[in-house]
Amino acid sequence: MAVRIGIIGYGNLAKGVECAVNKNSDMELKGVFTRRDPSSLKIKSENVPVYSIDSLKDMKDDFDVMILCGGSATDLPKQTQEYVQYYNVIDSFDTHAKIPEHFASVDANAVKSKKVAIISCGWDPGMFSLTRLYSNSILPDGKDYTFWGKGVSQGHSDAIRRIDGVKNGKQYTIPVEAALDAVRSGSNPELTTRQKHTRECFVVPEEGADLAKIEKEIKEMPNYFADYDTTVHFITDDEFVKNHSGMAHGGFVFRSGSTGWNNENKHIIEYSIKLDSNPEFTASVLVAYARAAYRLSQKGDFGCKTVFDIAPALLSPEDGATLRKHLL
Amino acid sequence: MAVRIGIIGYGNLAKGVECAVNKNSDMELKGVFTRRDPSSLKIKSENVPVYSIDSLKDMKDDFDVMILCGGSATDLPKQTQEYVQYYNVIDSFDTHAKIPEHFASVDANAVKSKKVAIISCGWDPGMFSLTRLYSNSILPDGKDYTFWGKGVSQGHSDAIRRIDGVKNGKQYTIPVEAALDAVRSGSNPELTTRQKHTRECFVVPEEGADLAKIEKEIKEMPNYFADYDTTVHFITDDEFVKNHSGMAHGGFVFRSGSTGWNNENKHIIEYSIKLDSNPEFTASVLVAYARAAYRLSQKGDFGCKTVFDIAPALLSPEDGATLRKHLL
Repeated sequence: MAVRIGIIGYGNLAKGVECAVNKNSDMELKGVFTRRDPSSLKIKSENVPVYSIDSLKDMKDDFDVMILCGGSATDLPKQTQEYVQYYNVIDSFDTHAKIPEHFASVDANAVKSKKVAIISCGWDPGMFSLTRLYSNSILPDGKDYTFWGKGVSQGHSDAIRRIDGVKNGKQYTIPVEAALDAVRSGSNPELTTRQKHTRECFVVPEEGADLAKIEKEIKEMPNYFADYDTTVHFITDDEFVKNHSGMAHGGFVFRSGSTGWNNENKHIIEYSIKLDSNPEFTASVLVAYARAAYRLSQKGDFGCKTVFDIAPALLSPEDGATLRKHLL
Repeated sequence: MAVRIGIIGYGNLAKGVECAVNKNSDMELKGVFTRRDPSSLKIKSENVPVYSIDSLKDMKDDFDVMILCGGSATDLPKQTQEYVQYYNVIDSFDTHAKIPEHFASVDANAVKSKKVAIISCGWDPGMFSLTRLYSNSILPDGKDYTFWGKGVSQGHSDAIRRIDGVKNGKQYTIPVEAALDAVRSGSNPELTTRQKHTRECFVVPEEGADLAKIEKEIKEMPNYFADYDTTVHFITDDEFVKNHSGMAHGGFVFRSGSTGWNNENKHIIEYSIKLDSNPEFTASVLVAYARAAYRLSQKGDFGCKTVFDIAPALLSPEDGATLRKHLL
């Protein structure tokens, strides 16, 4: 029997989950839960009901895993710990600094309800974290480097849009090629913030706005832009829609370490991703971990987990013998 | 208390294990076992005894994990299943086609003896396999690519040395840059054997040998060279020692997959390693998995495992809370 999946929310991430479930024949989408009026929501999947989020507690026997697709700022800190009282849950909580706190509150409820929660699934946290953990364990004597991009930073785009005279804006984080090459060389460079990433901004100004003032305000904004080489381009609404509606992203994780009795040998591990759609890739990670959550709950291994706690074989629809034969 | 490690064998891999144990303060090397006369063997570590392999069965209470450093052709198929009767064991068995068979015989004995065995740890099988498994689980609709090199292929070097008139030889496997770029482009190319790798051979001929004949014999050797663009260089003994004694290696694993309701979005995952010392890197993987083997045995989770079955957190000396805080 297929793993019965529910989706909570219906933004870009949720739509990605819908697509990803569709690509996994051992899973079945059984419902989407929304805060909107359910009758107003048209989803891609045919014959899959849309429910009000208020009815969530009444359907405990109908879903094996709920995939939470809300945001990390306000939705997930409340929802994951609430819904794990009734369901196995997965989220993509990505506020790194608050993971310990989120973990603790979700774990407490998961242990009580005898459910499984897997938090912070995606690529960072997620696949990048796994690369860091594996690489640190193999090469304890070494240095980590993480680069993000080229891709849109939501936080920086929001910061631009809050500036007076800005109608719309998007910010791309771009890794500096020379920094990547320095890391690849094995020289273990010390890199400043400015040396690692540049920031490129595309801004649609209000009519008659003072462009020089906007540019200055962006470039000097503390924390967000002041420590970076920042470029600002002013564009029209049309250009914005045409060239800056995509959701591509990517990044790089390196471990540069040494081995040998006298550290005489160097090793570089590099993991990188290049994504056409950030939300669809994150969603694909969530769905693979939903399979693991279901299996852990079947084994009675309850509580809150992260990608660090999950044996990789649990992510695959194939059995152990098949995996050993074809992928090992 | 530190995890008490034994090493079986004392070739390049074993020496790498000795160095790696030395870099992990929660582990302690308690002995090296050899088929040679123990008194003839001088190891790097001070105050660590060298034992005859014949005394292995008499020291069951003195070691937590034995790391087997023999070869996959004849040593490991016998040793791993034998020694798991007495110890938790780790090996780097790398004959891909025979893994299912090796797994079955080791597992049968491990279950009986209530010990843990982790087989096929290293980079391929090992880290490359993990990348394939994670990437396939996340992007079920896609294509895998694995490239090896630049590095020495032991099997191909052996094949060269068996040719009449060859005194010594070494063969480098080199990934074709254009093939790597084609994969990175997301075009999902169909690549022939010849398009993926080239082979470069450095041969020290016997005095008076027929060089043209040797070159022809190498280039036309079925399975090993005939399907590749192969270059042959004749060099002197001195050049061989000076330029071809290194043990560098490396490689690339890609997953190129698509997501979206109509496969409209492409994603590339790339994992690569660049190693100064193939045996020392493999040894470092073995040592991280030795930690996991010890922990599994403490939990009573016995039997034969592979990297697919091991939760990544078990590889690290840090506890869950620390990992979540610093690496997630």
